[in-house]
Amino acid sequence: MNDAPDTEPAWPDYLVRPQPDDPKLSTAVTGVDHTGAAVSTRVVHEKPLTLYLNAQEIVTMMTIGDHPEELAIGYLLNQGMLKANDSVTGVDVDEELGVVVVRTPEQTNFESKLKKRTQTSGCAQGTAFGDLMEVIEGVKLPKAEARTSWLYALTHKINTTPSLYLEAGAIHGCVLCKQDRPLIYMEDVGRHNAIDKIAGYMFRHEIRPDDKIFYTTGRLTSEMVIKTVRMGIPVLVSRSGFTAWGVELARQAGLTLIGRARGKRFIALSGAERIVFDQDLGFVEDESARHRRKGAGGDD
Amino acid sequence: MNDAPDTEPAWPDYLVRPQPDDPKLSTAVTGVDHTGAAVSTRVVHEKPLTLYLNAQEIVTMMTIGDHPEELAIGYLLNQGMLKANDSVTGVDVDEELGVVVVRTPEQTNFESKLKKRTQTSGCAQGTAFGDLMEVIEGVKLPKAEARTSWLYALTHKINTTPSLYLEAGAIHGCVLCKQDRPLIYMEDVGRHNAIDKIAGYMFRHEIRPDDKIFYTTGRLTSEMVIKTVRMGIPVLVSRSGFTAWGVELARQAGLTLIGRARGKRFIALSGAERIVFDQDLGFVEDESARHRRKGAGGDD
Repeated sequence: MNDAPDTEPAWPDYLVRPQPDDPKLSTAVTGVDHTGAAVSTRVVHEKPLTLYLNAQEIVTMMTIGDHPEELAIGYLLNQGMLKANDSVTGVDVDEELGVVVVRTPEQTNFESKLKKRTQTSGCAQGTAFGDLMEVIEGVKLPKAEARTSWLYALTHKINTTPSLYLEAGAIHGCVLCKQDRPLIYMEDVGRHNAIDKIAGYMFRHEIRPDDKIFYTTGRLTSEMVIKTVRMGIPVLVSRSGFTAWGVELARQAGLTLIGRARGKRFIALSGAERIVFDQDLGFVEDESARHRRKGAGGDD
Repeated sequence: MNDAPDTEPAWPDYLVRPQPDDPKLSTAVTGVDHTGAAVSTRVVHEKPLTLYLNAQEIVTMMTIGDHPEELAIGYLLNQGMLKANDSVTGVDVDEELGVVVVRTPEQTNFESKLKKRTQTSGCAQGTAFGDLMEVIEGVKLPKAEARTSWLYALTHKINTTPSLYLEAGAIHGCVLCKQDRPLIYMEDVGRHNAIDKIAGYMFRHEIRPDDKIFYTTGRLTSEMVIKTVRMGIPVLVSRSGFTAWGVELARQAGLTLIGRARGKRFIALSGAERIVFDQDLGFVEDESARHRRKGAGGDD
C-alpha cells in the first residue's frame, strides 16, 4: 500500500486510485516461459456481477470487482436507464452471490418502458441501444481548454501511478482529470466498466464534469464517445486509436477527441479548437520503454 | 489488392485474409497533430448489425461489417444458441437496414427456452451467459502439438500480412492456424466478433478444429477461453495477457493457453504439455519496432 510514502509521490491529488496490492484483485499463477522454464506471474481477477435496478434484472457484467456500487450506478447512468436527476435510495452488494441492486424511490421510466417492450422482443440491451443516439442530438458541451502542457503532465502521472496494469497487465484504465491533475483513476477488465465506475463516482459525489478531461487507455469507439458526452465532459483523450463512427459522433456533439497520445505525439480528430498548444515540445520526452503500455493486454 | 503480387508473398496459404483496401471498411479523416499541423489518417468503420434467429431478435453488434453471415452464425454457435449439428437453411443480410437473419428448418431449442424465460426476466443475454459454463465441464480437448517453431513462424506471418490493423489501427485480429500456416484471418472492432466470424466460417466450410491453433491479438479472458473450447480447438495463443478466470477455465478444460507472445517471449499458463520446444532461440529475433502492435488500438 502507498499510504505513507517516504518521498512525495507524483500522484498526491487522487481522490481514487488503483490498489494493485489488494489481494482480491489479482493472484499469482505458475506456468512455463518460452524456454520451458517455470515462471510465476500475476493475473487479474474477473468475476460476474449481476445488476438489478429495483426488481428488474439488467445485465451480468464481468468485472475485477472493486467499486461495485459506482459500477452499478454508472452503468445505469451511461445506458440512460437512470437519469442524472433521479435519486438513488440505496445500493446493496452481495459479493458472494455476485449481485448488486440499485434502488430508487419509485419505478423508473426505464422499467416501465422495458415492461412494455419485453412483451414483443425480450432484450433490455436492445432498448438501451436505441436510446443511446438521442444523447448526441442537441447536446451542447461547454467551452473549455485542453492545454498540451496539461496533456503531457497527465499522461506522465498516469503512466507512473502504481496500478494493476503495471502489476498484472490485461486491464484498462480510465482517469477523470482536471487541468494537469488526475483525480479518479479506475481500472477494469473492460474499458466500459472503468468509465462507468467514474460516472457512478461522479454521481455519488456531485462532481462537476464541465471543467474535466477524460483519459482512457482504450480505443475511441462510438460507445466511449457517447458515454463521455452523456457525462458532460468536453475532452476525451486516449493512447489508443479511433473508429470512424466515434469520430463522427464526437464531431456532431462538439467533443474534443484526442487519440494515439504517446510520448509527444497525438492526433485530434474533433474539437481541436479547445486545444491550446502551450507546451515547448523540446522538453517532452518520447515515450520510454518503461512506460510504454505493452498491450500485454489493456490496450484495446 | 494483393491478387497478383510480383514476388511470392509470405502469406500464400490463407483461405480468408484481411482486405485493408476495401473502401467500405475504413475511411480517411482529417485532423491536427501534436504540433497543430493538419494531418490525414485512416480510421475503421463500425456499424450496428442486428441479429435475428428466425423471428427472434437476439442482439445488436457493433462490427466493421465484413463477413456478416459468418459473424451471425458464429455468434449463435459460440453463445450455444445454435448447436454444431443444427442445420442452417439460409442467412439473409440487409446491409442497408443493418440486419442479418439466420434461418433454421424448425424453431431451435434456444428459442423455445427463451420464450419461457422472457416472461420472467426479459434478457436473451442472461440466458446465454448461464449456459456458457456448461461447456467447460466434461469437455475433452484432443491431444495435439504446439511446436515453438510453428508459433514463431505464425506470429511473423500474421504480423507482416497486410491488414486493417496495419492500415488504420484500433482493431482486433483472430487467426485460425494449422501448424505454421495461418489459414483464416478475420478482423473486427471487437475481438469477440473476430472469433465468431471464424467459428461461422468453420461451420459453413466444415473445417475440423482438432489440429488447429487459434491466435488472437486480444486478451485471454474467460469468454475467449470458453469460445475456443466450444469450437474444439486445443491451443489458444495471444500477444496479450491473461485474466485469472481465463486461466482457471483453460486448466479445467485442458486447453493450452499461451499469452504475452512477443518476439521470442511467451508464457504458457495451462496445457504446457502440448508445447514442443523445437526452436533454436538463437535464430528468433526480438520483436522489431516495425511489427510491434502499437496498441494504437486493437491490443485489448
